[in-house]
This record gives sequence, structure tokens and C-alpha cells, in this order.
Amino acid sequence: MDSSSGLPTLAVVGATGAVGAVMLDLLSVRRDVYGEIRLVGSERSAGRTLRVRGERAEAVALAPGVFDGVDIATFAVPAPVAAEWAPVAAERGAVAVDGSGAFRMCADVPLVVPELNPERVRDRPRGIVAGPGCTTLSMIVALGALHRRYGLRELVVASYQAASSAGRDGVDTLYAQLEKVGGDRALGNRAGDIRGVVGELGPFPAPLALNVVPWTGTREDGGWTSDEVAVRAETRKVLGLPGLKVSATCVRVPVVTAHSVAVHAVFEERTDQREAQAILACSPGVVLCDNPETHEFPTPSDVVGTDPAWAGRVRRSLDDPHALDLFLCCDNLRKGAALNTAQIAELIAAGRTD
Amino acid sequence: MDSSSGLPTLAVVGATGAVGAVMLDLLSVRRDVYGEIRLVGSERSAGRTLRVRGERAEAVALAPGVFDGVDIATFAVPAPVAAEWAPVAAERGAVAVDGSGAFRMCADVPLVVPELNPERVRDRPRGIVAGPGCTTLSMIVALGALHRRYGLRELVVASYQAASSAGRDGVDTLYAQLEKVGGDRALGNRAGDIRGVVGELGPFPAPLALNVVPWTGTREDGGWTSDEVAVRAETRKVLGLPGLKVSATCVRVPVVTAHSVAVHAVFEERTDQREAQAILACSPGVVLCDNPETHEFPTPSDVVGTDPAWAGRVRRSLDDPHALDLFLCCDNLRKGAALNTAQIAELIAAGRTD
Repeated sequence: MDSSSGLPTLAVVGATGAVGAVMLDLLSVRRDVYGEIRLVGSERSAGRTLRVRGERAEAVALAPGVFDGVDIATFAVPAPVAAEWAPVAAERGAVAVDGSGAFRMCADVPLVVPELNPERVRDRPRGIVAGPGCTTLSMIVALGALHRRYGLRELVVASYQAASSAGRDGVDTLYAQLEKVGGDRALGNRAGDIRGVVGELGPFPAPLALNVVPWTGTREDGGWTSDEVAVRAETRKVLGLPGLKVSATCVRVPVVTAHSVAVHAVFEERTDQREAQAILACSPGVVLCDNPETHEFPTPSDVVGTDPAWAGRVRRSLDDPHALDLFLCCDNLRKGAALNTAQIAELIAAGRTD
Repeated sequence: MDSSSGLPTLAVVGATGAVGAVMLDLLSVRRDVYGEIRLVGSERSAGRTLRVRGERAEAVALAPGVFDGVDIATFAVPAPVAAEWAPVAAERGAVAVDGSGAFRMCADVPLVVPELNPERVRDRPRGIVAGPGCTTLSMIVALGALHRRYGLRELVVASYQAASSAGRDGVDTLYAQLEKVGGDRALGNRAGDIRGVVGELGPFPAPLALNVVPWTGTREDGGWTSDEVAVRAETRKVLGLPGLKVSATCVRVPVVTAHSVAVHAVFEERTDQREAQAILACSPGVVLCDNPETHEFPTPSDVVGTDPAWAGRVRRSLDDPHALDLFLCCDNLRKGAALNTAQIAELIAAGRTD
């Protein structure tokens, strides 16, 4: 704690990464609730100068000592790094807020989406609070709002995931591939040629330019990917619905930033299109963008750089009055990552003075 | 009929379009069952020289007389053109095979997918046979095979549709947009900028480069699009399942050619992942490409220019042993359009001599 101000000291671990950059932006524009902000990076990025709250600050290398005197430490780092260092931060007295997948499914770590279950931040026996992954976050605020009214029973999800959730390497790979294929107008109609022309695949298992790739994350049992089983497990945990039926197919698309999901949601109660639209329009953290007459629906290019989850294409299923079909978009670096972490940190900061 | 050969005379209406070009390729490489092939285009494209079966041929302008002596006339033209001219062809004695949406849902026009319901071509009171749209065709051969074993009850579909199903204008628009956004690496992270930079939207209601667009087709009641209700109606008609529950969300993606679909299929019987894979592997018109260990799954770039529907990511749903999740890719200009039409025409040609 910054004893002169009484305001909490924040450590931003992973400040030099893609999500870290968004975190520094958010810290600079949101209500300022912190005293000192300490920027923490890898050994390699230590010493780099960054900007936060209008001032320049130097990143320090991740080490146990960086957490001394820290009240809240946010982690925007790969899961193995968070798995090692969040407990170190907690041991030294900080509350660790982890955006990685390291602790999400631990029974003694709350999984928090501040619009839905803010009270859960208080119950943190290990001193660690986690947020869900970007695919879950792109839909869960809107679905949580509909669940409160109709009672969620089943979800079928197909995702359209952006390159930037694979980090800077993902974005660089997509642009490098686009430069190679963009000029050759015959390419898109010649079998197999794209694979030979795009060059490096980077973090993706197949070409991404002029293509879609039905594989994100790592391999799980039964042919599923880690992202697909995570959408199921995280949605169940956040909504407190351990029996919720969830089938997800996660697909990477050649978009830089902003995830989209097509969702078929089945509820206990009968649904109504207009009422569902009204619920979404009034839900904090959700923007309804849904007017077919004027071609209003959310697309990644509309929502990138914005905070909320955008919802559109709300339809009552033609064959099931208990089901709604909708399309959602969300900036995977904001609500999908840095923003949710920042919101959790703010809840913890506010809780210190409750 | 070409009286010297006894082989049927074929008219290819729309020979100068994007699907027409694929049709001429197919006629040049498939078993040759025709005598004369007459190429028919619009007034504007009449006189253009094309190649078919290794020979040059001149397109003639669409007029009633072009159907004189024609046995089979295929239509790869916009629906209003087919609606006007397929009956003219039929009146002059030809069997019209329409790939457009003009007649698909007419009760007195069979909707044919040769792998599934070839016998239906014989029942054509109006002299017209139709094929389904490209989104339905990208999945229905594989789903029909699974239906025979398990009994299909419900489908939830999310599509990833290529630009070329919006014609040459769609492809040109995508490439022109990619040239404008491909070089600016900051663009993908700046809200709204893509819309200002991509230039013409062409046939799409939002930018397609570095974006996905959850709207294909025209507006229907309840917030649905014409493509989405067509997937439902066509699947029901081809499979003979008037009560099948279908919810589709159709999305355009920045891919030149080859549609993909993520499908959640619920069946009457319990399913089995290995058995389902074996069924797909043995089904004519389907290729199974499904090995997570070696990152084998179909993507548009793998399947463009090929005939079959490719199936992968076959999983039994974690919460419902009666449900399978899978991902399918198919060249929307081949099986999704020209190939299905060519196959129907071949069935009719064969039927003449039965």
C-alpha cells in the first residue's frame, strides 16, 4: 500500500505483452483507484519504458521482491508463468488476479465476471481470483442476463476467434500471411496453394489468411480442444450451473481483434424475441445492436477497442419457443482479457475499504 | 438430342459466370455423356469464347430458341432469371436443372442431392429439378449418412461462408478490401477504422476483410435471413424430415472459396465417435479428415477445388450421447453449386436410356 495516499499498490505482471498494453490503456482512462502502479515484465523486457496514467514508467523483471508492499497483482501472462508466480504474489500479501487459464477451474479459486458474480471475489482462500477465457467472456455477460430471466438449460456455441488471442505472434503471422496471399487473386481458387504460399504458420496449426481454422488451444480427450472444454467448464462455474449442457466448436478466423460467437441457447422458460432484446439492451456490460431492417448487427470491426459485449441477430428458434439464437462480438483483449481483470482488481480495491 | 450420336444435348445457362466456369471445367473432366453442349449467357456476355471439353465455343444469348432440341438445360443464374427461363426450357422439351433458389421449395419440383435421393429426379411434373443452396450442400451429404444410421432429430448450424457464393463481385470486393487493409498493421486494433478504410462494401452489408459478417441473403420474418431459413427448409425437404428442428446462423468470412459449417446434430439413437467417423469415411461424396493428434481437420484452403464434402472434428457431445459435433468444409462452387447440378444432369441423362 502507498501509505501516503492510503490507496492500494497495484502490480501489473505481463505489462509489456499485448494484453498488458490494453491493461495500461484501461488504467489510464478508468477511475483511478490505485496509489503506486508497478509494471512487471519478463527478464527480457525489463527496463523497457511504458506509459500509464500519462506518465512514463519502467518495467521491472518478475522476481519475488516485486510483490513486496503490493496489494493487488494482475497477471496477463502464459498459464505456466501465472501458475508459478500468482502463489508467490499471494504469499507476499497481494491478492493475485489471474487472467490466464492456470487457476480457473481450481475449486478454491473463484472465477469472476464482475457483472455476474462480483460477490465471489471475497471468497479467495488462496489469495487468488481468476477470470474466464476470452471465448467464454465474449458471451457470458449477455447469456447471464438471459439466464436470470429464462433459466439456462443448454448452449451450442460456434466461435469466430481473432488472431490476437494467440498473442503478438498471432497478429504478426496473420499480417505476414495476408501480405503473401492478398495480391494473388487466383490463389483463393486453387486447391492447396494457400498452404504453400503463406509461409510461416506461427502459432496456428493451418494457414489463417483467406482461411478459417477449426482448432484453438490444445488437445483434450474425445477430439475436443482445450478452448472447447473450457467454454463448457467456465460457463458452468461462473453461472453456478454444474449440469449445464454445453457443446462448443472453436474456430480461428482471419480477424485481428474481437471474438465472435454464434450461440443457440435453450432455456427452461418460453422465450420472446422482443423481451430478450429488451433484457440485453438494459444489461450492464452489454450493447444490443440488432436491427435487420437497417443491417445493424455487431461485427468484429465495429466492436474492437470497445468495452462491452455486443449482441445482435437475436431470434427465437423457429422450432423451439424455449430457444434463442444470437450472435455476439467482444474485444478479446478488453472484456475478453484486460478489462475483466481490471474490473476484478477494482472490486478487490473497493473491498479493502468496505 | 444430337441425332447422329444419340447422346443428349445440354444447354449450360449462365456459362459465363463464376459457377458456370466451374461447370465447364467439370464437363471437361467428368465422364462425357453429352452430344452437343450449348453455352448460354446474358445478352452482355453473348459472343464470348469459352472452353469446354478441350474445344472453344461461343456463348449465345439467352432466348427461347436456344432451348430448341435441348434435352437438359442447367441453370447457374440469379433466381429471378431462373424463375423466368427454366419454365421456358421445360416448355420446349428440355429438363431444367436449376441451381438457384427459384424452385427449391416448390412442392412440384424435386430437390435433389444425388448421393441422398437420386430417385427423386424422375418425379418432375414441371420438367424442373432443383438442387439445394451451397450452405445446405456443404453439410447434407455427411449428415444424410449419419441420419441413415442414427436418425436425425435436430440440427444447430453455424456457417463460415466464402465470398465467392456472392459471385465475382464478392471475390473482387474481398481482394480490393484486403489490399486496402492488409498493409496497415495498426488497423485491426482501431475501432471503426476498418469501415472507413475498406472502400466499397460490394455485395456485403459490412466490411469483409479482417472481419466476419453475420448476415447472408435477404431479410425474413423474426430476424432470420433467407440463407438461414433455406438451410432449414432444404434440409427437411431433401432428407424427407418435415419436422426436423433446425437453427442456423449464417456468417460470411474473408475466405475466397469453400464454405465451412460447425454442426451440432442430435439423433434418435445413441451415437459413437468412432462409428460416426467410420460411417463418414465410407460415405460416397464425403472425405473424413479427422486426426487431432496430427492436426488433421478440414479447412477451406484444403478443400477448394475438390469435389467432396470434407468432415472433421467429429466429437460425441460431452453432455448428450445422442449428439455429435462436427466441422465440415466444401467447395461452394463445386458440390455447393456446379457439381451438384452436373450430377443431377447426369442422372437425367442416364434416365433417358433406362
